[in-house]
Amino acid sequence: MPENSAYNDLVDLFRRIGIINDAIAILDWDQSTMMPEGSASSRSEQLATLSVLSHDLLTQPKISELLDKVEVNNGGIDAWKVANVAGMKRAHLHAISVPAGLIKAQSQANSSCQMEWRKAKQESDFSFLMPSLKEVIEITREVSIAKSEKLGLSPYDSLLDTYEPGCRSETIDEVFSDHENFLSGFLGEVMEFQSRQPKTIPLKGPFSIDKQKRLGTEFMKDFGFDFTRGRVDVSLHPFCGGGLNDVRITTRYDENDFTSSLMGVLHETGHAIYEHGLPESWSYQPVGSAWGMAMHESQSLLVEMQVCRSHSFMIYAAPIIKRAFSGSGAAWEVDNLYRLYTRVNPGFIRVDADEVTYPAHIILRYRLERALISNDLLVADLPVAWNEGMASLLGITPPNDSLGCLQDIHWPSGSFGYFPTYTIGAVAAAQFYSAAKKQLNDLEDEISKGKFKSLLDWLHSNIHSKGSLLSAEELLLTASGNNLNIKVFQEHLQRRYLH
Amino acid sequence: MPENSAYNDLVDLFRRIGIINDAIAILDWDQSTMMPEGSASSRSEQLATLSVLSHDLLTQPKISELLDKVEVNNGGIDAWKVANVAGMKRAHLHAISVPAGLIKAQSQANSSCQMEWRKAKQESDFSFLMPSLKEVIEITREVSIAKSEKLGLSPYDSLLDTYEPGCRSETIDEVFSDHENFLSGFLGEVMEFQSRQPKTIPLKGPFSIDKQKRLGTEFMKDFGFDFTRGRVDVSLHPFCGGGLNDVRITTRYDENDFTSSLMGVLHETGHAIYEHGLPESWSYQPVGSAWGMAMHESQSLLVEMQVCRSHSFMIYAAPIIKRAFSGSGAAWEVDNLYRLYTRVNPGFIRVDADEVTYPAHIILRYRLERALISNDLLVADLPVAWNEGMASLLGITPPNDSLGCLQDIHWPSGSFGYFPTYTIGAVAAAQFYSAAKKQLNDLEDEISKGKFKSLLDWLHSNIHSKGSLLSAEELLLTASGNNLNIKVFQEHLQRRYLH
Repeated sequence: MPENSAYNDLVDLFRRIGIINDAIAILDWDQSTMMPEGSASSRSEQLATLSVLSHDLLTQPKISELLDKVEVNNGGIDAWKVANVAGMKRAHLHAISVPAGLIKAQSQANSSCQMEWRKAKQESDFSFLMPSLKEVIEITREVSIAKSEKLGLSPYDSLLDTYEPGCRSETIDEVFSDHENFLSGFLGEVMEFQSRQPKTIPLKGPFSIDKQKRLGTEFMKDFGFDFTRGRVDVSLHPFCGGGLNDVRITTRYDENDFTSSLMGVLHETGHAIYEHGLPESWSYQPVGSAWGMAMHESQSLLVEMQVCRSHSFMIYAAPIIKRAFSGSGAAWEVDNLYRLYTRVNPGFIRVDADEVTYPAHIILRYRLERALISNDLLVADLPVAWNEGMASLLGITPPNDSLGCLQDIHWPSGSFGYFPTYTIGAVAAAQFYSAAKKQLNDLEDEISKGKFKSLLDWLHSNIHSKGSLLSAEELLLTASGNNLNIKVFQEHLQRRYLH
Repeated sequence: MPENSAYNDLVDLFRRIGIINDAIAILDWDQSTMMPEGSASSRSEQLATLSVLSHDLLTQPKISELLDKVEVNNGGIDAWKVANVAGMKRAHLHAISVPAGLIKAQSQANSSCQMEWRKAKQESDFSFLMPSLKEVIEITREVSIAKSEKLGLSPYDSLLDTYEPGCRSETIDEVFSDHENFLSGFLGEVMEFQSRQPKTIPLKGPFSIDKQKRLGTEFMKDFGFDFTRGRVDVSLHPFCGGGLNDVRITTRYDENDFTSSLMGVLHETGHAIYEHGLPESWSYQPVGSAWGMAMHESQSLLVEMQVCRSHSFMIYAAPIIKRAFSGSGAAWEVDNLYRLYTRVNPGFIRVDADEVTYPAHIILRYRLERALISNDLLVADLPVAWNEGMASLLGITPPNDSLGCLQDIHWPSGSFGYFPTYTIGAVAAAQFYSAAKKQLNDLEDEISKGKFKSLLDWLHSNIHSKGSLLSAEELLLTASGNNLNIKVFQEHLQRRYLH
């Protein structure tokens, strides 16, 4: 059948693209972990050359032709193929929607803005960044309009769709408004509740990096991280990268504080086991990949926030942590470690934020980036708008732009539409975990005993092994029994932070 | 001018090929140093995909057309361009000389023979390897005939030319016969001389790997290894890899014996500083690369054999080595360390061989591989021929094939024509170093004081910075004042091992 042959040709092409993208991912990983500083520009050229190759393969007219020809049986056993073709179409459409010249201009603008940003952040000098940020935003706007025309979405939704297909600002607006209202009362209650609790006792270091590594590895194994198909290393900014059968997570160690690195490792482990659990028989195919950034984040936050910062987990983990560092005294007991890991404290910096205040940072960025892209907010007015937003959402005002609108690399590197996926991921994580608890007997009891098998099996069969067979929406509905529902997240916060 | 435009197009194409090859080199390095075992097959696919891309670029008809069109001024300032075009022609000709189908068959045969070899070596079972080795040799023979037709060389010389352009078996025959004669008397004299020397005192470990690393790094810095453009890691088989501004050497550590790893690091450092010293303005171009494997080996052997195993170097190094391991007693003094590093002892294994017996291992392999390719030796007869050769050259007979014809990966991986470059490199190293000593005042005295600048400057200006502007033959003549001359190497051996 000609249809099948067209389908097989597409599979071969996407396999080729996937293999090149995996090579790029390893070179990216190496850049952040191993590469000597002097080869930065050679590495940029390697990455640019391979990215162009991959992009050329994805945008070639032959793919359009094959996609026009292909027809797959829309029932029963072929649901995977149907979803695969849909994923091919999405990827191809996104890729061809932006003219090559604009992509090149964007890549150059983003690169140089990132460089300027490092300086601007260091000196807390927003005016220094302004011209190049303005250029990045103008080009991103052009890109969003080009995508908008092909995708039939609003410009901002076209950007959102790049990171999380199917995610729309209409939904986000609703969810974020609800949560802003919720937070306005809840945060005060939490602070009040916390003030009545025993004070946290600080843990005294130094904590040797070797011991931190061993401890992290132990917990990674608990969560099924497969060290024959992955590794953990050190980088300035933690991430989960690599590719098929080769998942590479990173962390950074601080000899004076192990808590943040340890939780970071567990967060990235959540990403890693998702990658490890994707359906093997669909390797390199769109349907064999994770759906988008929000679903990916749901898996890291499920492990980090839902499980590892829970009191149940701390019952299991505290004695292990104590032993790892030969700790003694009340500071190393379950309740104190739990209080340390659930302390709420409104601050200026997103990446240091606790679970309760984190969404406020995201709501702020989401609103500002929409306004920047639609030109309702001028770049010059960003610092003032930022500070007003922080005051309104968290009641604090950054003393300078480094602690304000200069803190994140996302905008200078051209990532608009990415921020909301963090909080959508947090909401989905709460929904998935809530469903798992309902479906599995005594899950929290098991976790307090260090038994993770039933949870990991549940995640694997309900989420990881599905790849992109289901859209995020369908996956949420099937696995959690609900559409995106901020209430479940809010109930989780109430349970954890008011009791 | 159309000529210039053709030349510029070629430069762009070779730049692109060079960038992809550098990406491949980093992925290769990662495979040997970092990659988790479970991703072996994904990595093979990445490497195969990128290699095909690179090969397709190099064999495209457009390159033939451009090479036909290009004309560069053959005088003065354009000598570099002339040499660059010559290098392009060589690379293109080698690449197009073998039909794509044959390359694929070769790559598959080599891969599967390598796998069989691991087992065969472990069990010392040559008959297990035989069928796949036979296939590899048959395909290599086909390749050599295909190359032969395009290059106008004999089949075996076409293979040699792949690793060291311009190297011919006529020269090697002459050099190796001379050296075989030399060795037949010399080896006995050395053993006799050695027996009259004080016994070497063994160094008692364990030697912590951290200390070994620090010591290796210290000596690497002495030889100008640029850590902003390179790094050192651990792999099963030491090598020098990586690419532009990113030279990656490896070693393996043994807690019971630091001497072999330390000298290995210095050997690879010799390769590394060659790569670091290649002409920057010709990056990614044939003329900006090293000429071939023999010239590359001359630089590693110059550092290792000529310099670092010399008595002068040991005067400098012994106190540093002693301090590094907090050693005490006569074992750690200059003379004992020098004797340890220049001990001659005929053995079965090439990679463990000393400077005196090493060429015998190479002579044996060279003669056998020529006979295998020309079909004068049947694969089935290899073990017997090997053992007879060892008996004749070194007076010892391997008790099994693991210690005999199964020891090296070269033939199972399809590398025929590579072995001779080790000894041609050793000869060239002796010639270069002899010239440097004549041209630089008190070089050995400087080395005994840890002053390497004048030597490094000499190597840089006479060899490294030349790239492939000169052929190996021209380079030898220009830098050493002589054609390839085994006598210089033999004199070096006589000075070192009989005094």
